[in-house]
Amino acid sequence: MEDNKTFETTKPSLAPPSGGGGGVHVFAPATVANVVCGFDVLGFAVNEPGDEVIMRMTNKPGITISKITGDDGRLPMDPAKNTVSVSVQHYLQSIGRTDIGLDIELHKKMPIGSGLGSSSASTVAGLFAIKTLLGDDSDAAKLLPFAMKGEEMACGHGHADNVAPALLGGFVLIRSYDPLDVVRLPHPAGLWCAIVFPDVDVPTREARQIIRKNIQMKDAVTQWGNIAGLVSGLFMNDIDLIGRSMKDVLVEPVRSMLIPDFYKMREMAMELGAVSFGISGSGPSVFAFTKDEDTAHRITQKLQKHLTGLKIGSNGYVSTINDAGPRVLG
Amino acid sequence: MEDNKTFETTKPSLAPPSGGGGGVHVFAPATVANVVCGFDVLGFAVNEPGDEVIMRMTNKPGITISKITGDDGRLPMDPAKNTVSVSVQHYLQSIGRTDIGLDIELHKKMPIGSGLGSSSASTVAGLFAIKTLLGDDSDAAKLLPFAMKGEEMACGHGHADNVAPALLGGFVLIRSYDPLDVVRLPHPAGLWCAIVFPDVDVPTREARQIIRKNIQMKDAVTQWGNIAGLVSGLFMNDIDLIGRSMKDVLVEPVRSMLIPDFYKMREMAMELGAVSFGISGSGPSVFAFTKDEDTAHRITQKLQKHLTGLKIGSNGYVSTINDAGPRVLG
Repeated sequence: MEDNKTFETTKPSLAPPSGGGGGVHVFAPATVANVVCGFDVLGFAVNEPGDEVIMRMTNKPGITISKITGDDGRLPMDPAKNTVSVSVQHYLQSIGRTDIGLDIELHKKMPIGSGLGSSSASTVAGLFAIKTLLGDDSDAAKLLPFAMKGEEMACGHGHADNVAPALLGGFVLIRSYDPLDVVRLPHPAGLWCAIVFPDVDVPTREARQIIRKNIQMKDAVTQWGNIAGLVSGLFMNDIDLIGRSMKDVLVEPVRSMLIPDFYKMREMAMELGAVSFGISGSGPSVFAFTKDEDTAHRITQKLQKHLTGLKIGSNGYVSTINDAGPRVLG
Repeated sequence: MEDNKTFETTKPSLAPPSGGGGGVHVFAPATVANVVCGFDVLGFAVNEPGDEVIMRMTNKPGITISKITGDDGRLPMDPAKNTVSVSVQHYLQSIGRTDIGLDIELHKKMPIGSGLGSSSASTVAGLFAIKTLLGDDSDAAKLLPFAMKGEEMACGHGHADNVAPALLGGFVLIRSYDPLDVVRLPHPAGLWCAIVFPDVDVPTREARQIIRKNIQMKDAVTQWGNIAGLVSGLFMNDIDLIGRSMKDVLVEPVRSMLIPDFYKMREMAMELGAVSFGISGSGPSVFAFTKDEDTAHRITQKLQKHLTGLKIGSNGYVSTINDAGPRVLG
């Protein structure tokens, strides 16, 4: 659709940097946080979209950012202000390797402020890149605290429901933040995800601020019955139970107001056979689970056409759940 | 311990009733509702204690209650006021069999008002008895709405977190009440349950009334992170995750005030190796999960001794989780 944004797809070169060692090119996935009934504690990674980082060793200690693409100039090139370099710097400090020189290229392949964990994908790509460059093949989970540092800088809160699935892949529960307790959940293999990003502005900070701080116990009981049902459905491979459980009586009623025609889009998705439909993270992206790829494509097409009619640009993505997390490209 | 209550253990006879057909003797289990972090939506059944119903066909249409034992005269003999007969009557009406004549004996084998689902056990025993008498071998789950009717009469609310596990056995999630959606959860085979009932009065209605109607979102998030963790632990056979997840920041801080030395008892149980400790239902019974039978016995003994020191009578039970639900005896 002509209204829709596109993102750079040219692959940047991996030529050796001047005066430095080899480089690495890493992809990290977008993520859907909250997953309707799991506000602040659930998230999953998708195969598309995602961000890419190219990282090269240099001879001069310290981190430089030589290039950012796909951000319309919105992200800082200053390494002290960019979430990627800041989280990498935290990691290097923790292992006592601030002697290392690094150059970072960040290639945004997804919209910023979309509710798809854009900053998390970049941060995780950066952390996975430095881990790979250093030949460290230990568990990626140890990078989580550093990714959360980046998230805190980007969003004003150190939540893990985007960074944890971006880093670990798959479906992830943040059981507790203090102490941090992350549980990887299974999911039905045949679950597809349709994502549509309507190009309207919903900053994460503001989307958080409109959420009620005080709620009714009876609504909370409904919500935790549902999250328990969703988790059960994931373990039981019961897609219908997953669908029945994905209801949100607390956050969606408020945040949906920031999304154009949210309930109309839900109606369309459900009529086309979606298992469930909801807001991705703090929005404005919406997502649907489906039982097959075709249904997912039909949903993104119909919703994007509807948004075009509203003169709103959009991006559509169809993907299974990404179980691998970040990976080295080519 | 001499202070502790005992309950009748003599087996009533199953002699044919005067002028009627054969009879049936049914046991239904006690249940632990809420399970710490699953207020109003989780419960499990135990092997001990439980209630017993003897039901016989009679020649005269209508229900009579000929005997109730173990209740200290607290339960109504009037069939229009007793939860067992009322729920059986609802069931008979639903199948158009109000022509049947029935006599009921109810033998309470556990304390009333204990937070162990006493009324649920009786009701479920009654419903399972009539189903058995009628030779109906269909799924017991269909009895759930009738059991909830009895629960509504006994407690003033038609909750299912006691009746569902009493009826279905095992660990049960009430995903939703409207529509009713019940999910049976697995559990580690080696999980033991220690239960102590301190003989103090905590009526269910009052225990509900002191719970806050308005809560903070941040506490609700903590709670649903924990219920999701508990459900995950049940599916993953991860007893440590089960233990870490069984924390309640919303209901226990209030209800524990009605239970003598609750936090002291928790400290004792955890020191003896409990996986978790909390209030059973609305209390005053408390329960601990353990990894073995010996630890469970040590916990009931220590807590009962402590209560004796406070001049409070108690009952102690040690059991695995009851996966069978109600059963016909001997």
